Amino acid sequence: MPLDNFYIVDSTLREGEQFVHAHFTTEQKIEIARALDAFGVEYIELTNPAASPASFEDARRIANLGLRARILVHCRCTMADVQQAVETGVDGVNLLFATSEQLRTHSHGKSIDEIIESARGVISFLQDHGLEVRFSCEDAFRTPIDILLRVYAAVDAMGVDRVGIADTVGVADPLGVHELVSRVRGVVSADIEFHGHNDSGCAIANAYAALQAGATHIDTTVLGIGERNGITPLGGFIARLYATDRGLVSRYNLRMLPQLDSLISQYTGVQIPFNNYLTGETAFAHKAGIHTKAVLSNPSSYEAINPEDFGLTRRVELGHRLTGWNAIA
Amino acid sequence: MPLDNFYIVDSTLREGEQFVHAHFTTEQKIEIARALDAFGVEYIELTNPAASPASFEDARRIANLGLRARILVHCRCTMADVQQAVETGVDGVNLLFATSEQLRTHSHGKSIDEIIESARGVISFLQDHGLEVRFSCEDAFRTPIDILLRVYAAVDAMGVDRVGIADTVGVADPLGVHELVSRVRGVVSADIEFHGHNDSGCAIANAYAALQAGATHIDTTVLGIGERNGITPLGGFIARLYATDRGLVSRYNLRMLPQLDSLISQYTGVQIPFNNYLTGETAFAHKAGIHTKAVLSNPSSYEAINPEDFGLTRRVELGHRLTGWNAIA
Ligand SMILES: O=C(O)CCC(=O)C(=O)O
Ligand SMILES: O=C(O)CCC(=O)C(=O)O
Ligand SMILES: [Cu+2]
Ligand SMILES: [Cu+2]
Repeated sequence: MPLDNFYIVDSTLREGEQFVHAHFTTEQKIEIARALDAFGVEYIELTNPAASPASFEDARRIANLGLRARILVHCRCTMADVQQAVETGVDGVNLLFATSEQLRTHSHGKSIDEIIESARGVISFLQDHGLEVRFSCEDAFRTPIDILLRVYAAVDAMGVDRVGIADTVGVADPLGVHELVSRVRGVVSADIEFHGHNDSGCAIANAYAALQAGATHIDTTVLGIGERNGITPLGGFIARLYATDRGLVSRYNLRMLPQLDSLISQYTGVQIPFNNYLTGETAFAHKAGIHTKAVLSNPSSYEAINPEDFGLTRRVELGHRLTGWNAIA
Repeated sequence: MPLDNFYIVDSTLREGEQFVHAHFTTEQKIEIARALDAFGVEYIELTNPAASPASFEDARRIANLGLRARILVHCRCTMADVQQAVETGVDGVNLLFATSEQLRTHSHGKSIDEIIESARGVISFLQDHGLEVRFSCEDAFRTPIDILLRVYAAVDAMGVDRVGIADTVGVADPLGVHELVSRVRGVVSADIEFHGHNDSGCAIANAYAALQAGATHIDTTVLGIGERNGITPLGGFIARLYATDRGLVSRYNLRMLPQLDSLISQYTGVQIPFNNYLTGETAFAHKAGIHTKAVLSNPSSYEAINPEDFGLTRRVELGHRLTGWNAIA
């Protein structure tokens, strides 16, 4: 699959708001939305307007900022939620419904047929109002494949713009994602969005494998913030694409990434991890003698990513306590 | 491939020593080695004894601690280095030689034939002394496949115990790793070790894909410390295997992981990232109403990993500033 047909759906203002240390004010949300827009993400996803009057009001305001990015709200698949969504003036709605046994039992208690039937009314209501519609299966990777394909084929037939595949508990691995996305690709004509949690360390790799299998939309958050240890981080996803081919990310304003990471670090009070992609304090630090010698001769010897493209600098550590570091690689 | 035939080669005392903030004393190294051994890693890799008299002495002391783990040193493929290795009394040597165009030009300047010829003498010297031998191609993912296979087949014919595949600059992706390891698996009878950097966010996923393709040994460091933003973290790799099947990691002393992460955090002065696998402050925090409600009813609804297996506890965030959080999932 060609990798260049993709869109970033940044969910810092939805999944990120579910991060335990996120308590964004309206002004902060607007600043974050403007920064994401200036960076160039194609979509910004916001919290369900039905969550509270404040969420409704914030969605309305952000939808009216005149940003280039399309504005989405994340809703349960109910008429009550999507009626509010339509009133906010957003461009589209990201619907979700849990399909795994675990969540059907411990969360909403609905059968698969009931899920499909609820979807029908909600989707056609949104279509009648001219909104972009995505339907996602929450906890897709713990849902039997035949059930998933049945649900996706059903909503595809209803004419949704996109289907979503969510690795809600962070159990998926890249080969599994590639396989599942390929299967879904085979039964729907809609675009495919992937949303992956990072509990088992594969959120970036899974997003990338999803693209390789034909997904078109990838969910990210700044610094990866979200429930538990979060989802695919925007910076890490950019690093992954850049490492494959810098041209894949040339449409984004890469020099804004450090500012985005700092903004979210400041508003949540968490430190940028020392080993964060691109903006971590050690991301471009070279130490062993063989490395430093080669990097000084040609940075690409031990660097797949040029820090200057992000307005950053490398750090070449010379003169250690130990002698003989040129014996180390 | 069955996933249960694998060994962890922990390199906190080698790759980790190349982390910009690592300056371990001898006593600290011994404490780290003992803790890794108590956790249950099968191998501990140490810095090249030829790097300095202190490195030599530390290797000798750690080799003589009587640990259950096998002790390896990491050496350049030269007689000078491996002669010192043998004198330390370690169990084996992890040899490496850069094979990519970038590193052959900007680092050692040798041809592929010269590389193979140097390997021959060094390998047979180590075999004569009864040491376990691994030969690794540094920067394998920027080396043409035909060259790689030629080198691996040559050292396999020399009878090495393992070949190593290193993603030195962190550019590999899981499908690429699966493909390359499968190809190498087809031309060698030796075991296969994988070493992956995390610059583009795939170090854990790549290690896992390597296992799926038949690799047997995975390099890790505690917290992932190493050159730049590091390599596959021990805790993250454990989380990945656990998420697939808890039985895969039942032989390790999982309750020691928090202590290992704290030890390295303390000795390097870097904070454990907020989103670190398992031990990050937010790793088991649940916030959205739908999540907290379901988790209180049954934790596995939104948790693939049970924190209690690591001696940790979950955090269920109730009563937010916002009302209506049960409208959010
Ligand atoms: O709507 C989606 O696809 C994702 C929802 C969510 O955050 C999750 O399932 O983890
Ligand atoms: O010896 C190896 O396989 C790995 C050496 C190393 O640290 C690297 O190439 O990144
Ligand atoms: Cu999520
Ligand atoms: Cu390395």
